[in-house]
Amino acid sequence: MKDIYAGLIGFGTVGAGVVKLLQGNASLISDKLGARLILKKIADLDTTTDRGVQLSPGMLTSSVNDVLDDPEISIVIELIGGYEPAKSFVLRAIAAGKHVVTANKALLALHGDEIYAAAAKAGVEVLYEAAVGGGIPVLSAIKGNMAANRFNTILGILNGTCNYILTRMTKEGLDFADVLKNAQELGYAEADPTFDIEGIDTAHKLALLLSLCFGTKVQFDQIYTEGITSISAIDINFAQQFGYRIKLLAIGKRDGDRIEARVHPTMIPVHYPMADVDGPFNAIRLTGDFVGPVMFYGRGAGQEPTASAVVGDMMDISRNIIAGVGQRVAPRGFINEKIASLAIKPIGESVSRYYLRFSVVDQPGVLAAIAGALGKYNISIESMIQNGRSGDYVPIVIITHEAKESDITAALAEIDGLDMIKEKSNLIRIEDNLE
Amino acid sequence: MKDIYAGLIGFGTVGAGVVKLLQGNASLISDKLGARLILKKIADLDTTTDRGVQLSPGMLTSSVNDVLDDPEISIVIELIGGYEPAKSFVLRAIAAGKHVVTANKALLALHGDEIYAAAAKAGVEVLYEAAVGGGIPVLSAIKGNMAANRFNTILGILNGTCNYILTRMTKEGLDFADVLKNAQELGYAEADPTFDIEGIDTAHKLALLLSLCFGTKVQFDQIYTEGITSISAIDINFAQQFGYRIKLLAIGKRDGDRIEARVHPTMIPVHYPMADVDGPFNAIRLTGDFVGPVMFYGRGAGQEPTASAVVGDMMDISRNIIAGVGQRVAPRGFINEKIASLAIKPIGESVSRYYLRFSVVDQPGVLAAIAGALGKYNISIESMIQNGRSGDYVPIVIITHEAKESDITAALAEIDGLDMIKEKSNLIRIEDNLE
Repeated sequence: MKDIYAGLIGFGTVGAGVVKLLQGNASLISDKLGARLILKKIADLDTTTDRGVQLSPGMLTSSVNDVLDDPEISIVIELIGGYEPAKSFVLRAIAAGKHVVTANKALLALHGDEIYAAAAKAGVEVLYEAAVGGGIPVLSAIKGNMAANRFNTILGILNGTCNYILTRMTKEGLDFADVLKNAQELGYAEADPTFDIEGIDTAHKLALLLSLCFGTKVQFDQIYTEGITSISAIDINFAQQFGYRIKLLAIGKRDGDRIEARVHPTMIPVHYPMADVDGPFNAIRLTGDFVGPVMFYGRGAGQEPTASAVVGDMMDISRNIIAGVGQRVAPRGFINEKIASLAIKPIGESVSRYYLRFSVVDQPGVLAAIAGALGKYNISIESMIQNGRSGDYVPIVIITHEAKESDITAALAEIDGLDMIKEKSNLIRIEDNLE
Repeated sequence: MKDIYAGLIGFGTVGAGVVKLLQGNASLISDKLGARLILKKIADLDTTTDRGVQLSPGMLTSSVNDVLDDPEISIVIELIGGYEPAKSFVLRAIAAGKHVVTANKALLALHGDEIYAAAAKAGVEVLYEAAVGGGIPVLSAIKGNMAANRFNTILGILNGTCNYILTRMTKEGLDFADVLKNAQELGYAEADPTFDIEGIDTAHKLALLLSLCFGTKVQFDQIYTEGITSISAIDINFAQQFGYRIKLLAIGKRDGDRIEARVHPTMIPVHYPMADVDGPFNAIRLTGDFVGPVMFYGRGAGQEPTASAVVGDMMDISRNIIAGVGQRVAPRGFINEKIASLAIKPIGESVSRYYLRFSVVDQPGVLAAIAGALGKYNISIESMIQNGRSGDYVPIVIITHEAKESDITAALAEIDGLDMIKEKSNLIRIEDNLE
């Protein structure tokens, strides 16, 4: 039986999960491959902490060269995260003719083009299923059996921390800050949660989905990114009254030669399957021109689901190695020469329905002033709720018909300049017109 | 640019969809493959009916030999369905060294072993993503990125006709026969709907999922199969009162060296994502030891989704052809020598909670008699509803704690022998203890 050797760089939680999986399911894996998949070396600066797995003597090293320079190792797994030195290690592995498996969405969202070009030149695979949706096999499905489709729409709940926070705010009526604090205590949110709660992690993942679905380079800094920090219990409550739930969504749409790419809190109807995706779960809904809508649902993070995706990629590469193939599928599913450079449509041009919440002084003429400003920018009102009083002010909530974001922005600026408005108005985009 | 030639056998609805997709997305497909994927010949006995697609002259033939004997054709698509002549054609294609793509679940559920053995010998691929869940890429995910997992549980809503009927019964309070008749008029159900409504189609698909998830041969006739014909509006109504929805589920579970394999109407909690899978949609929920639960959702049938799966398989094979590979992945994901022959546990040994509905004469002592019979077989009652009168009798509904199916069967036989029981009692299994 053939032996295939892999080396791991970065021995954290996911790395330990990969070791656990390769050990625990070794016979299953060889029954499928007809070959043994062997982790030969693990490089990590910390060679002393107990990760709860047994390693053979000499397997763990503090020198990354023991992985990158080992001619027997044909698959390198990068799990250190961040831009550097991860990028240098990945490029060195590729230059040495080794295949790469990584879970590093930040690296690929910003430096994917360079890495993929190097992989094409060297004739090796770069697989990264674990970078989006944890164990959910969505990237391989886009490159694989769904490849015949022209994709139209991407919707994703891609960050478990945000979804956990929003789910608890919804179910328990709590405010953002309280749930975040508790989530940090429980280990569901990082000590510095910025990447998660500001939507940056979700935007990294959206960038990867966009490149795969639309076959394009993605200018990461053009993705409109808004986190969940301004969502309050009162918004969640109003959303429920209108029949919606609030989720942090990654949204990608094809619009002629451009794409929409945005990450923001979004109201979706409660009867949508995605509205029931709770807690640490992730879901990705794609629409292809032939397959129609397809949704994938599962654990979006965690040691074991992420290890499942990493080892799945390793097995895919192993099948190539057994068959004597170098790069069988380009990292974005399209051959490199056919990758487009589609522009991202500015957020101001996007069209949506909106939830608008105004905090007003309770006096005659307020509603007329708001309605007047909206009318001036061609924004028509679908429904309105004014109920109760929240502290010193009265909340007025308006759901609009479809409007252009730049019109909404202009109207809100005008409204927020009025004396009778007590605090900055809040807008949440609505997504309820799915094909 | 390399040309890859395919031949299609069976030019029905799905076949026409494949032609449409290959024509409509030809440039997308070649941008991904770096090769042209060309349908060279279509064989069908009917060469005159207009299928709404344009073919080049001479492409459509009534002789299957024009496909099977053409040395230029390297991929044969079988879309005629049924056992023969489909099986002979598939075996001839394999013997000629051609790769096979098929949507024929009935053929593979009963004759898969023979076909897969021939494919291993000839070194060709047999792909059949379209056979389960229409366009949902679940089979390739099991063989692909989820391959590192030991699967524990399979749950599937796999038949669009049944799900459409149950959804309408649930939403409109209608009875089975009325919805079926209307579905036939609308073309959502076949003139002879037996395969669908008796659960046979679902059992075929379950057999394929079992073989892929558990790496085993499956004795199709050992799968317990019960359709939806005995579900009445009254059961659906009671289910709702208990917080459940009724779906025709395919259930597969690993139980040591045996597997559970059953198809039957099943009550699942309304808050489960699968409970919201409505109308013609399908869903498959798999649990792997590392990935945890993963759910796939999409259109389970129809011309375009099915064509998406067929052409996706063709592209997968094309990537092998370009790389000079014969069989890269065995048809069940495990190498043939490692395929097990796990026995299917008899339905009598399975353990579940049960919904039991009794039609009784409204007289003293009835409930005592029923409860006594249940107690005799160690079946304990979790909850009970007796409300209203339905015609001449009173319905009594009992939800049991976990019980062994053979105990339930024995208790029901005894109860149904009582004078006070007006008609055969109804049982529906409950699935609400998902990992």
